[in-house]
Amino acid sequence: MIEVYKIGGKVIDDESALAKFCSGFAKLEGPRILVHGGGVAASRLQQRLGIEPVMVEGRRVTDESTLRIVTMVYSGWCNRHICALLQASGCNAIGMAGCDASVIRAERRAPLTEGPCKGIDFGFVGDVTAGSVNVPVIENLLSLGLVPVICPINHDGKGELLNTNADTVAQSIASALKASLNCCFEQKGVLVDSAPVRSIGAAEFEKLKREGTVSGGMIPKIENCLQALRGGAPSARIMSYEDIGVPDAGTFIHL
Amino acid sequence: MIEVYKIGGKVIDDESALAKFCSGFAKLEGPRILVHGGGVAASRLQQRLGIEPVMVEGRRVTDESTLRIVTMVYSGWCNRHICALLQASGCNAIGMAGCDASVIRAERRAPLTEGPCKGIDFGFVGDVTAGSVNVPVIENLLSLGLVPVICPINHDGKGELLNTNADTVAQSIASALKASLNCCFEQKGVLVDSAPVRSIGAAEFEKLKREGTVSGGMIPKIENCLQALRGGAPSARIMSYEDIGVPDAGTFIHL
Repeated sequence: MIEVYKIGGKVIDDESALAKFCSGFAKLEGPRILVHGGGVAASRLQQRLGIEPVMVEGRRVTDESTLRIVTMVYSGWCNRHICALLQASGCNAIGMAGCDASVIRAERRAPLTEGPCKGIDFGFVGDVTAGSVNVPVIENLLSLGLVPVICPINHDGKGELLNTNADTVAQSIASALKASLNCCFEQKGVLVDSAPVRSIGAAEFEKLKREGTVSGGMIPKIENCLQALRGGAPSARIMSYEDIGVPDAGTFIHL
Repeated sequence: MIEVYKIGGKVIDDESALAKFCSGFAKLEGPRILVHGGGVAASRLQQRLGIEPVMVEGRRVTDESTLRIVTMVYSGWCNRHICALLQASGCNAIGMAGCDASVIRAERRAPLTEGPCKGIDFGFVGDVTAGSVNVPVIENLLSLGLVPVICPINHDGKGELLNTNADTVAQSIASALKASLNCCFEQKGVLVDSAPVRSIGAAEFEKLKREGTVSGGMIPKIENCLQALRGGAPSARIMSYEDIGVPDAGTFIHL
């Protein structure tokens, strides 16, 4: 079975965490794909260039300068740095953005027409185009023994790059390939009373959300896992990047 | 026969020139590879970040910050932007740096031990490792109908990225694949008395160089073509990016 791993910007931004993750990821066996973001480093470069990052509903408002910055950071430094680390550990990584081999497409998000942020134009922000994950090309690359390392810079097929959400990209790929989804971050899983729970079902998630036991950034993470499962992924979990290689680590999400 | 094209930083930095080149490149038929630099944009980003570019003997002194910048610019923005443009024209481009699928390796250049710049340490500057062009992986990608777009950020196999010369990368790939080399820039070819000459042999080049008829940046361009021919490339030429698709355009270099 193919496995999809996702790491976020905080892991990527911490050299020792990234090295630990890459070393563990390289030791895994079988066909696998890594999806990564790079938001922390992108915000830092924005600030160094005098651009204050603007986030609305968790997404980065992406004007032309910001598109260049996120493309440079995600698909340039982060993507190649991760590939060089994986190659050094014997993992035959190949860095990709969505435009490469047209592995995934996105379409530009329309300005918000309702809610408290009505009128906001996200600019060059994309949403994954339904059915656009290029399964044959990914399978061909995997069959060559390559390990795709994919960042969430996608293209619209008309020459425009679009800044897309890395969790959504990981979920879309896991769904399309019927691959397991492993979302890695800094915590041991979904914490309830400071301890990671072994599994959470969709109904239980609604209850935990209502009670406020699960809140903030954890909600979209779990929702993303549920979407992968609904899309055809056989399993989905939220885990620590430190536990890579531990088969039963983290919190398994189920429907 | 496989064809290798190379475009330089000035073409990449001019949106209309780049669009023209990409449209022509997409219309070519048969297996082909594009190698590109991005030096003009890299220098501009360095300056915006308060770092003055330092060039010694035509190479950029590359400290840690500069390595991040060239990796972001060459392998992030330029590489993905070119791929998105090619994809929009129906060319199945796949953006790569040397670390991707370990397509090419480099080794760090030692500090200069002689000459007027004795003692200069280029930092994270690499020279292509002899015999390191990964011919099987390139042939596999070409056989999938993919068009590799390669930037000169290579890796040393130990996790380090290195800033390598794009002309040398193009020449090394052409040599290893026994592919024709086409170096595209802003002029019609090698100009003698303001007109492009049809062909130049190695002996004639020495004469033109002695006379000063050929000088400056043209000298390493011709030397690079000669090296490709010595390495096994069946042909090598210097041409305008505007003449892409014109089989006999430009100046053919021969031994």
